[in-house]
Amino acid sequence: MPKTRESVRSGCPIACTLDVIGDRWTLLVLRDLIFFGRHEFREMLNAEEGIASNILTDRLRKLQERGLIDSIPHPTNKTRKLYFVTEKGKALIPLMTEFVLWGNDHVPETEAPADVIEIIRNRRDSFYKETLQSLSDWEAANLPERGEACT
Amino acid sequence: MPKTRESVRSGCPIACTLDVIGDRWTLLVLRDLIFFGRHEFREMLNAEEGIASNILTDRLRKLQERGLIDSIPHPTNKTRKLYFVTEKGKALIPLMTEFVLWGNDHVPETEAPADVIEIIRNRRDSFYKETLQSLSDWEAANLPERGEACT
Repeated sequence: MPKTRESVRSGCPIACTLDVIGDRWTLLVLRDLIFFGRHEFREMLNAEEGIASNILTDRLRKLQERGLIDSIPHPTNKTRKLYFVTEKGKALIPLMTEFVLWGNDHVPETEAPADVIEIIRNRRDSFYKETLQSLSDWEAANLPERGEACT
Repeated sequence: MPKTRESVRSGCPIACTLDVIGDRWTLLVLRDLIFFGRHEFREMLNAEEGIASNILTDRLRKLQERGLIDSIPHPTNKTRKLYFVTEKGKALIPLMTEFVLWGNDHVPETEAPADVIEIIRNRRDSFYKETLQSLSDWEAANLPERGEACT
């Protein structure tokens, strides 16, 4: 069966996950959304790593196409968007947490806050719960239609 | 301070980890070494995903430079090498395990063995222990100098 450009390389779950997040930037976009509360293009563009505008546009588009993030029009400026992670995107939190730990332990240049590392190491479930709660709080404040749909 | 090509992008541990493994192929090379017992160039070249020879050469070189893998001359053919993961490389096993779970749960094309997923989900510590044991067994059989150095 001929492989198309978009087809998976194999059935290996590591390869399949790499097909979605296996580049230098995708997880940083998700980091901004999940851990730093950056929901706008401009906020992500201004992140410390200096992502290029065209790369950010590409990664946001791919993440949305693949269902890891979604967006709504900005409430006060319809030319802007508010991006947010879906359940599929939130499911990457444990994986991203392992990125934090490996970087902290094995890359000397890492400057992870010691209190965050301590929480991850000793109260991992609390870390996940608090992270998900902060995302839920943002959704409750910014996605009112969804809140109403659930009542 | 001007950034050189090799400098890190930020102190963020996720970014720092991405600087090491943030591409489509590096984790597949580590997968071959850690989970599939592929210790030779040719074996990795023949993996299902069809990595290109020049990419494999590049990733092995970078992984060795960064201390995640090492190599010894092949015992019966000095023109070949046997590659193996170091402790720094083994420390990525929890991260790679999260790649397995996310791919299994969120990429329909994934074909992960159900028994492996079951072990990861319900006996994660056993999965890590068995994986590390298989690597130790290989080392004991193939790195005799190290074994002797420890006695």
